[in-house]
Amino acid sequence: MKPARFLPILDWGRRYDASALSSDALAAVIVTIMLIPQSLAYALLAGLPPQAGLYASIAPLVAYALFGTSTALAVGPVAVVSLLTAASVGRIAEAGSTDYVTAALTLAFLSGVFLLILGVFRLGFLANFLSHPVISGFITASGLIIAASQLGHILGVGAHGHTLVEILVSLVPEIGATNMPTLAIGAASLAFLWWVRGGLKPLLQRLGLPAGPAGMIARAGPILAVAVSIIAVRVLDLGARGVALVGEVPSGLPPFTLPSVQPDLIGALVSSAVLISIVGFVESVSVARTLAAKKRERIDPDQELVGLGAANIAASFSGGYPVTGGFARSVVNFDAGARTPAAGAFTAAGIALAALFLTPLLASLPTAVLAATIIVAVLSLVDLGALGRAWRYSRADFAAMAATLVLTLVLGVEAGIAAGVALSLALFLYRTSTPHSAVVGQVPGTQHFRNVDRHDVITAPNVLTLRVDESLYFANAGYLEDRILGLVAEKPGIEHVVLMCPAVNAIDLSALETLEAVNEGLREAGIALHLSEVKGPVMDRLKRSAFLEALTGEVFLSQYEAYAALAPETARGALEAARPEVCPNAESRGLHPL
Amino acid sequence: MKPARFLPILDWGRRYDASALSSDALAAVIVTIMLIPQSLAYALLAGLPPQAGLYASIAPLVAYALFGTSTALAVGPVAVVSLLTAASVGRIAEAGSTDYVTAALTLAFLSGVFLLILGVFRLGFLANFLSHPVISGFITASGLIIAASQLGHILGVGAHGHTLVEILVSLVPEIGATNMPTLAIGAASLAFLWWVRGGLKPLLQRLGLPAGPAGMIARAGPILAVAVSIIAVRVLDLGARGVALVGEVPSGLPPFTLPSVQPDLIGALVSSAVLISIVGFVESVSVARTLAAKKRERIDPDQELVGLGAANIAASFSGGYPVTGGFARSVVNFDAGARTPAAGAFTAAGIALAALFLTPLLASLPTAVLAATIIVAVLSLVDLGALGRAWRYSRADFAAMAATLVLTLVLGVEAGIAAGVALSLALFLYRTSTPHSAVVGQVPGTQHFRNVDRHDVITAPNVLTLRVDESLYFANAGYLEDRILGLVAEKPGIEHVVLMCPAVNAIDLSALETLEAVNEGLREAGIALHLSEVKGPVMDRLKRSAFLEALTGEVFLSQYEAYAALAPETARGALEAARPEVCPNAESRGLHPL
Repeated sequence: MKPARFLPILDWGRRYDASALSSDALAAVIVTIMLIPQSLAYALLAGLPPQAGLYASIAPLVAYALFGTSTALAVGPVAVVSLLTAASVGRIAEAGSTDYVTAALTLAFLSGVFLLILGVFRLGFLANFLSHPVISGFITASGLIIAASQLGHILGVGAHGHTLVEILVSLVPEIGATNMPTLAIGAASLAFLWWVRGGLKPLLQRLGLPAGPAGMIARAGPILAVAVSIIAVRVLDLGARGVALVGEVPSGLPPFTLPSVQPDLIGALVSSAVLISIVGFVESVSVARTLAAKKRERIDPDQELVGLGAANIAASFSGGYPVTGGFARSVVNFDAGARTPAAGAFTAAGIALAALFLTPLLASLPTAVLAATIIVAVLSLVDLGALGRAWRYSRADFAAMAATLVLTLVLGVEAGIAAGVALSLALFLYRTSTPHSAVVGQVPGTQHFRNVDRHDVITAPNVLTLRVDESLYFANAGYLEDRILGLVAEKPGIEHVVLMCPAVNAIDLSALETLEAVNEGLREAGIALHLSEVKGPVMDRLKRSAFLEALTGEVFLSQYEAYAALAPETARGALEAARPEVCPNAESRGLHPL
Repeated sequence: MKPARFLPILDWGRRYDASALSSDALAAVIVTIMLIPQSLAYALLAGLPPQAGLYASIAPLVAYALFGTSTALAVGPVAVVSLLTAASVGRIAEAGSTDYVTAALTLAFLSGVFLLILGVFRLGFLANFLSHPVISGFITASGLIIAASQLGHILGVGAHGHTLVEILVSLVPEIGATNMPTLAIGAASLAFLWWVRGGLKPLLQRLGLPAGPAGMIARAGPILAVAVSIIAVRVLDLGARGVALVGEVPSGLPPFTLPSVQPDLIGALVSSAVLISIVGFVESVSVARTLAAKKRERIDPDQELVGLGAANIAASFSGGYPVTGGFARSVVNFDAGARTPAAGAFTAAGIALAALFLTPLLASLPTAVLAATIIVAVLSLVDLGALGRAWRYSRADFAAMAATLVLTLVLGVEAGIAAGVALSLALFLYRTSTPHSAVVGQVPGTQHFRNVDRHDVITAPNVLTLRVDESLYFANAGYLEDRILGLVAEKPGIEHVVLMCPAVNAIDLSALETLEAVNEGLREAGIALHLSEVKGPVMDRLKRSAFLEALTGEVFLSQYEAYAALAPETARGALEAARPEVCPNAESRGLHPL
């Protein structure tokens, strides 16, 4: 199994049969039809010639089929990675120049190498530090920026810039120069694609088609728009009326290309390559995980890094640009019945056929149609409702999402996501540094202990019990010390302090030293410190320190045992008292009964 | 009480009486005797003229007495802050120049303003992010650097540099130029002070003195060394034999000085001011907390920031340099019976008297004696044993401590502590991103559920129960998803997955969305997802999301209720089975029985 671990095709390839072949082939045909216009459009978005999109949809798919673990992931050009490519390469070279193409190849190569390194050293967990609110805010902002950047193509004028503000400002003075035939084509395409997206599937279903095939046919909307617009351009000779066309696309298979090894260029691209790798990986692995779970399969995130790394390296040697697993295409691939990564290789064959035989037709394709496909695709990524859901669930998550969204729109994609990651880490650290803690007492008639502020409980006058609902570590050790010493200073009758630890999953050295200081401080004030309900792994660790010997009190297995030992009359009295209705006052206070 | 909150003297001043006065005055006399040589020595360490140390021990103490909340904290020049001052000011100006003195005043002012801002906005918790291992490694490294930097004074040669390596390298070529009389005085002082530290107190106790007074007298060792060496210099005319002396110290009260408002200088000092403030605050607040606890008192960390901020601003207007609460002096102050912050004001009066009347004597004081007092003082800060204790307790804490220590020695104080903070945060995030989790089963004869790897428990074939011992947040959400889906993929008979949440103190939006994806993935695979033992605050939050409606399973109050509902026969059978000796195999596996 060792080689199959690194080359999953050795595993599934052995069991490949005619049934899998026919399923994979059917899925590949459907994905190919979807991918042809997408690959051209995303190349346009990335500032690259249209054939770069086709090339990025051939060799990378074969490489992923060899190394990837997802049976449904459809690798290739995607919107957000294309935008990131445009933002980083656009800083270095003029769009349309040879330098620009070389920089994109180099970016793909660096991104591939970085992904491979992460995979080989099993560092995939690093991607987890990109939180969902940050990704959500970033994707929404990216969608808005991408849509804005395509408005120029729809109007037939130039637009430039990498932030929403820059793009809109560059558009305003150009509006007077709008090319009407282009606008007509663009607006018609937008309207058609929008209707296809929302209205075609239900229509087909009303006409008697089952939901599955109806959905598949609706996915072919963009290729229909492409075909019709090519015919319109040829028949009406729209090129002569100022409609921008894709123009000559060379026929044939991808060329052999080489990334640059210039240190200056590599230095300028490396941070963008890291960002593109991580964003692409996160997008890809989340859809791969979800689709695998539906079939009780699983993916290996570290091997996914290897697969995506191989795909990007393949892109850099075959005239492509950075790729990753696309969300919408993967879902289509899954729904169409793809059973192994071979479906991706068959899709590559389909795109290769298109590159060989369909390119003469594409010369007459208006860029406005491609822009319309991009706008319709990315506006489905824009999810402003997520802001409302985040606000209702958690203010901290809302803050991270809103900050990422706004900063990405205003400062650009790279600064926006960096600020989002920093903010979400800071908010997490802040939350854990001021943990929830509660003074607890015994629920009458039970051996249970609950928060005195939420429940009618019985407390012993000489015992203070504090439950801390967080692992103890350096950032909250000082808080804990202040809380205990503050409570003791307020209540002069205290003889025992019990720290109830069922929610303490770890105690680090800082917290241990703080507990030692608290123990010592309380000892001099004539108060004993006890622990209760300490977890096994935490206890194992405490035994390796001098703390348990210095502890003035005891470690009790349960909080009730602590009360029974330290305040036996209170404990017995509470146990024999009538048990109240479960938490009678919790509901009236708007609290959960636990 | 409102004004007293911000000006604690309004509170304790009202209750001040003759008994408190006599206690405070006695403590002040003892601290003054200890502080005279220390203040001169630390000014030398900071690269400032000796009077700067005296000035820093007058107005700042009065300012702290007005605003501080600790009854025992002895504010003034301390070793580590003096080293940090030398490191930051030394980058900007030549030691001995007016610019150097102005830069030190400005540093004190900036540090004071920063502390005040933190205090007013109640941001004291930020200091918690300096973990104990980082502080410990930093203090040990600082002690070694300070001791090395004083070797030049002991040998009577020049030494310079801000890292251990730089200092030692600068010393080597100078060794041949050692001044023998200086070395004799330095070595004799070192030996005497070392003996005083370790041997004088036991000797006095053997002579019949109680421990308290014996300890106080031992603290006067440095002033004795100062006095004897001044006499020796005068009698033997050692100044003429090349022994470096403190030289002319101006008599009189502190001058009125102003910090610089030059933007360049402020820009160059501001990051050092932040570092000095935080390091000084952490040192000060930890000793203040410990001493307050011994008397069942408490300090207010945010008001402490105000007190230390006022002290530093006072230092900047009265010829001083950055100050904070000193560890050893505060303990002496406490042991000597200080009862209110007034003891600090009386100490200020004592130092003012010394500045008025003792300075003519100090001209003949050899710098080697001051260097010896510094070396003996800081070597007590060096705690290499902490490395061993950290190693035994936790590899992560050891790594943070060792890295801070080594990087501080090699790269200098500022880079060292910055690297330590970054590393300790990274280690914490790594630990929480890969949480402990356990598949659990029912302990026979009980309703308890424990780890299947640690205990002989009974599990139902159709139910998988996973207990996660960490709050769920963005960095471990992916881990959780992989763990659940991995377990399900391994065990084909599973119909129910129960996530047991007694240790889950929070679920953030990323983790919520992951749970939604897991729920959806399992649903498509025909598996229901349930939760058990969800905490109140977590449940309150989940109710504000759509998750509970989408959940395919239920939320059970206890894990036993989950088993009783999902696998009633297994649950009943396990409950009726003979209860084993408590965890018979736990001890043999070297595990804690919980």
